[in-house]
Amino acid sequence: MTNQRLHQQIAFVVEIDRLKLVLRQTLLMDASRRENSAEHSWHLAMMALVLAEYAPAGVDIQHAIHQLLIHDLVEIDAGDTFCYDLAGHGDKARREQQAADRIFGLLPAPEGDRLRQLWDEFEAQVTPTARFAASLDRIQPLLHNWHTQGGTWKQHSISRAQVMQRMAPVETGAPELWPFVLEVIEECVAMGYLAA
Amino acid sequence: MTNQRLHQQIAFVVEIDRLKLVLRQTLLMDASRRENSAEHSWHLAMMALVLAEYAPAGVDIQHAIHQLLIHDLVEIDAGDTFCYDLAGHGDKARREQQAADRIFGLLPAPEGDRLRQLWDEFEAQVTPTARFAASLDRIQPLLHNWHTQGGTWKQHSISRAQVMQRMAPVETGAPELWPFVLEVIEECVAMGYLAA
Repeated sequence: MTNQRLHQQIAFVVEIDRLKLVLRQTLLMDASRRENSAEHSWHLAMMALVLAEYAPAGVDIQHAIHQLLIHDLVEIDAGDTFCYDLAGHGDKARREQQAADRIFGLLPAPEGDRLRQLWDEFEAQVTPTARFAASLDRIQPLLHNWHTQGGTWKQHSISRAQVMQRMAPVETGAPELWPFVLEVIEECVAMGYLAA
Repeated sequence: MTNQRLHQQIAFVVEIDRLKLVLRQTLLMDASRRENSAEHSWHLAMMALVLAEYAPAGVDIQHAIHQLLIHDLVEIDAGDTFCYDLAGHGDKARREQQAADRIFGLLPAPEGDRLRQLWDEFEAQVTPTARFAASLDRIQPLLHNWHTQGGTWKQHSISRAQVMQRMAPVETGAPELWPFVLEVIEECVAMGYLAA
């Protein structure tokens, strides 16, 4: 191998291929199969590109794109925890911290640290950038459930109140998108995709 | 819907979900299935993040990430053309231009035009940014074929000369990565993954 640094970076690139094997609960828009976390991350980065104009003041959209690209990498070790699975969330933070240690630790130190800080910022949900990125991560499955006639909600008997609670961070993270979120939820209730 | 502009942007976000259904020839690193173009685009954007330090002077890495996120969207209509399929490449450009007209045309004009220009720049392969982005798009399947003991190359009886021709743009697009590419190709020939 040409040099040790590049060797480590390529090993990381090879390792993260495994994110394509992590299945989420979300169904694709045509309901043909479950979505994986790699293509989900791509979809979110695309949403950040296309919906950038709705980002509140203080959001660094490039930074948001980077966060969305890496936000689910820890699932390679920790798996995807369904957002309405309260039991699974009990030790989610611990499992994901360990995963972050290992996965970002594959990279040479300064670069691994940089991506780890990005992920830590996303997880902490304090900065406008992290809150906008997380809002997109909530809106995307809403779009999928809307377009699959209630998809995952129906499978797991999710109610309007649960979805409202799940979506609540969008009100402050992406306030310009909040009226749209409320409209979609009400339409889904009206169509029978979501229990009132 | 809240407003017409957001309506169009959301319709675009929904439409591009179909990129997850476009299968490439490349196998995942564990050879369990073929890769789709959405997760491939995510992988390339991650490579741009992680390998940014090897970009030649004049490369705008954010711009490269945006190009890599959108570069395969036209495959929603035009399909993926295997890079060694010379017949399929005959009308590839025409099919992809039509696809770009339709898909980027889903967005409101200024924004659709901006993404279309990004895609046109990637396709033209003139700027350092587009040439670096395209180099990553060549290196990624190389990594997959290397880690799957020749994967797609073996299936299609691809030779070292064909791979060298396919990889040639990396020499100028990402010269710092070129020695690594040559090493991998020679290792693949030595291991019997690639016909000499």
